[in-house]
Amino acid sequence: MARDGDPAEVERQLSADAAHRFKAVCVVHNETSTGVASRIPEIRAAIDRAKHTALFMVDTISSLGSIEYKHDEWQVDVTVAGSQKGLMLPPGLGFNAVSRKALAAAKTARLPRAYWDWQPMLQANDKGFFPYTPATNLLYGLKEALAMLQEEGLANVFARHDRHAEATRRAVTAWGLEILCLEPREYSSSLTAVLMPSGHSADALRQTILEHFDMSLGSGLGRLADKVFRIGHLGDFNDLMLAGTLSGIEMGLGIAGVPHRRGGINAALDYLAGNRAA
Amino acid sequence: MARDGDPAEVERQLSADAAHRFKAVCVVHNETSTGVASRIPEIRAAIDRAKHTALFMVDTISSLGSIEYKHDEWQVDVTVAGSQKGLMLPPGLGFNAVSRKALAAAKTARLPRAYWDWQPMLQANDKGFFPYTPATNLLYGLKEALAMLQEEGLANVFARHDRHAEATRRAVTAWGLEILCLEPREYSSSLTAVLMPSGHSADALRQTILEHFDMSLGSGLGRLADKVFRIGHLGDFNDLMLAGTLSGIEMGLGIAGVPHRRGGINAALDYLAGNRAA
Amino acid sequence: MARDGDPAEVERQLSADAAHRFKAVCVVHNETSTGVASRIPEIRAAIDRAKHTALFMVDTISSLGSIEYKHDEWQVDVTVAGSQKGLMLPPGLGFNAVSRKALAAAKTARLPRAYWDWQPMLQANDKGFFPYTPATNLLYGLKEALAMLQEEGLANVFARHDRHAEATRRAVTAWGLEILCLEPREYSSSLTAVLMPSGHSADALRQTILEHFDMSLGSGLGRLADKVFRIGHLGDFNDLMLAGTLSGIEMGLGIAGVPHRRGGINAALDYLAGNRAA
Amino acid sequence: MARDGDPAEVERQLSADAAHRFKAVCVVHNETSTGVASRIPEIRAAIDRAKHTALFMVDTISSLGSIEYKHDEWQVDVTVAGSQKGLMLPPGLGFNAVSRKALAAAKTARLPRAYWDWQPMLQANDKGFFPYTPATNLLYGLKEALAMLQEEGLANVFARHDRHAEATRRAVTAWGLEILCLEPREYSSSLTAVLMPSGHSADALRQTILEHFDMSLGSGLGRLADKVFRIGHLGDFNDLMLAGTLSGIEMGLGIAGVPHRRGGINAALDYLAGNRAA
Repeated sequence: MARDGDPAEVERQLSADAAHRFKAVCVVHNETSTGVASRIPEIRAAIDRAKHTALFMVDTISSLGSIEYKHDEWQVDVTVAGSQKGLMLPPGLGFNAVSRKALAAAKTARLPRAYWDWQPMLQANDKGFFPYTPATNLLYGLKEALAMLQEEGLANVFARHDRHAEATRRAVTAWGLEILCLEPREYSSSLTAVLMPSGHSADALRQTILEHFDMSLGSGLGRLADKVFRIGHLGDFNDLMLAGTLSGIEMGLGIAGVPHRRGGINAALDYLAGNRAA
Repeated sequence: MARDGDPAEVERQLSADAAHRFKAVCVVHNETSTGVASRIPEIRAAIDRAKHTALFMVDTISSLGSIEYKHDEWQVDVTVAGSQKGLMLPPGLGFNAVSRKALAAAKTARLPRAYWDWQPMLQANDKGFFPYTPATNLLYGLKEALAMLQEEGLANVFARHDRHAEATRRAVTAWGLEILCLEPREYSSSLTAVLMPSGHSADALRQTILEHFDMSLGSGLGRLADKVFRIGHLGDFNDLMLAGTLSGIEMGLGIAGVPHRRGGINAALDYLAGNRAA
Repeated sequence: MARDGDPAEVERQLSADAAHRFKAVCVVHNETSTGVASRIPEIRAAIDRAKHTALFMVDTISSLGSIEYKHDEWQVDVTVAGSQKGLMLPPGLGFNAVSRKALAAAKTARLPRAYWDWQPMLQANDKGFFPYTPATNLLYGLKEALAMLQEEGLANVFARHDRHAEATRRAVTAWGLEILCLEPREYSSSLTAVLMPSGHSADALRQTILEHFDMSLGSGLGRLADKVFRIGHLGDFNDLMLAGTLSGIEMGLGIAGVPHRRGGINAALDYLAGNRAA
Repeated sequence: MARDGDPAEVERQLSADAAHRFKAVCVVHNETSTGVASRIPEIRAAIDRAKHTALFMVDTISSLGSIEYKHDEWQVDVTVAGSQKGLMLPPGLGFNAVSRKALAAAKTARLPRAYWDWQPMLQANDKGFFPYTPATNLLYGLKEALAMLQEEGLANVFARHDRHAEATRRAVTAWGLEILCLEPREYSSSLTAVLMPSGHSADALRQTILEHFDMSLGSGLGRLADKVFRIGHLGDFNDLMLAGTLSGIEMGLGIAGVPHRRGGINAALDYLAGNRAA
């Protein structure tokens, strides 16, 4: 899994591309389907070491506002984000942060564009407008969401997500289950994907938990379908919501007959009580 | 504590009142400050055995919609209820159920009344109106709350409250703490009051939990001030909310340095998983 | 009508009461059922001239936040207000402003009190609490309503209500209908009551307007039942809402066959356009 | 203006296209910027008469739910709609109705697609899901909006829009101003664009009305910029809202010094009162 965002692999492939055939390196900062977070600064460094001109594009949809991210400092060319995760809003707003290099590339690109073109948006935004009908109600929500993040402080927000992710992993480990992400440096702080024991259906467990506890866990996608379930711990989330979440999973594992050890919730509470927020 | 709603004591006092000096027997169905539920049918029977004419008045503010209650069948004369507990609404609506006997008594009573008089309300209600400005928005909310209760089914609603109360008591017992209500027949299904170990402040614990977990527990009132804390488990409430609640208390007990055993949350989860809702 | 709040009459009666048998002068600042506003400072002066010790009590339920009112400056002893008119909130909050003189009177009064007693409220308020369950959601709304009034500026708020009331009266006069309040000094700025031509039912007109235009006008109360209809122009209200309101009445008069002249809406628009807000 | 949606012109051009070079006839059902409604059935007939294979695509964004439209009966191949006009919701949902012919064309088309591809949507919808994150909150709103439209009855909804549009045009004519749409058969029932007298700025008028009456009128777009203003009368809209709207314009014309006659609001009210809803 970690292969996809492996900086060494990026460097190898770009270095081999003497003709600069690659136009962009596209990375998902936080991979929602696996709970793996890419090491963006290391990938940036890999591109730089390869002296490659490819644009660096990062999808931060499930990380922005939850996991530290620095578009400018990390010299990303295009960052894509959405309203419905760390920004705590309904879906409906998409955000692009675009470097001068990417803007220049867009100007010479011959790909047909209309809705996806940056120019009308930049021109209208310049005067405080949108070129199309904006989702005005979500803009009001965004104003409040940003105020909430500022009030808590971004460093505290990120620390809170890290802390909840670690508590979740301790619960998973205590249950004797396996975290899908094998590389601790790439653990996601906004969600944790958990591998089911062989022969047990993740979807059956998810269905049991939904029916008994009115809690909807994320499903495995693609080749992970029915093999993993995903625990989200991001956004407007606190210790007791996490405790409720993990309690539902611990009870659900029992009801669904999935082999596991007790003590997940205890391990999480021990960690939370022993590692308090600032 | 149980003394107050003791049917035998009611019968004794009413029997001794040959002159029928007592005008009413007033009972709180569910005592919010102590977590004690009165045995209304037994008190009704005690009044009947004493052949006393006193009106029977019951406060169901913290029980209606959470704990079984039968105004007609139990021959209560005046039942008082509110919108803000089991009916899951903001405070702002009060309800009176009044027997013919109570209406007749109100007609001959000489107590000065205006706002508290039933007659203008009955007359206006008859045509679908209110004599004063009604809280219209809460009436819309009430319509939805009643639909929610009907959808779940009252028997299921009451069983859910009983189950959450028992899970809570198992947590309290596992912590080695004492439930204030000593009489199991009078356990409240909507809240549980817990005695603090001697020498420890309930209010300090409540403050710790509020600060760390953004959860506000009820305080002890009157002579129980600082000696008990109260856990509410009523209304729009489910297993995972209870798990979150008990997790906050278990962590809070540790942070506040209150002597206790671990395992409260486990005891509750064991009970919940082993005694599932219908 | 104006008789009730007539300062001369108040002075006459109080002066005749050498034994100070009257305990209080109770006045409605803005009479919702008639659209008559009492001249509170003149009544205060009348009480003072009579050198009477009666408390001065004023109901500002339909004026506070709409019509200028000065509890301290006008030396009112008890002011009563509510959330559901000029404060633009749902019903559910009542407010009392109480003078030291009234507090002292309450201490020696022998009237049985519980819910209506000021002492528990004052004591709890002192520490930022309520003695009973407060309507917390309305307190949040109140915070916002007060911010809105501050933002517009109270003087502007009052001028806006005066202006809308005058525009309404010009429409009524243009229709050839009669304003119930005969004394211009006592015109209400928050509502206008209109007399129906003899032989025509106000309630039939109100029903016609409700059915055709989804607008609910106030009814006549008591002996004015079916004889007047009332136009509210207060709270979160602006020129175009008033224009819509008056348009509905003008069309409704025609549909209901009530004798009237056209031109009410024009008279109102002329006044509004010619007398713009600051 | 009417030229663009002129059925005769469509027939002429398609008939001249023997090679069937045109792939699609794209028409806006209701042109938001001009208040012109295209005669879709006549354009369909023109395509048929020309025996041309071009797809027929119609944008109903500002007409669906306001003006009669029949995707199947009129044999439209692709209908595009949005949530934010006649469906009375915030922006955020787009709808496509697609014929089998259009689906077949999409399969053989070589245009690169991802987000705009119908296949993933159709496959996921088949099981009740979305291929991407759906705007769940708007789907709940849509359910309620559709219930509102059903409750009123679509025929009544369309008649209401027609009636408000006619009342608006009567006001415009009474003011002595000119309606941009010259062809009565193409009047829009959801908005009316009004030409400013020569030498007067539509944007200055719009600004005056916004400042004085807190009402935002639509601006002229493209070559109509500053030359027209647009009056919307669609969605959750009734007679008194229209009266308020037209009152704001009539007062605004006066304040802004735009030459006009009085009586627009009267003309509209006369029409509304004389042509009542069913």
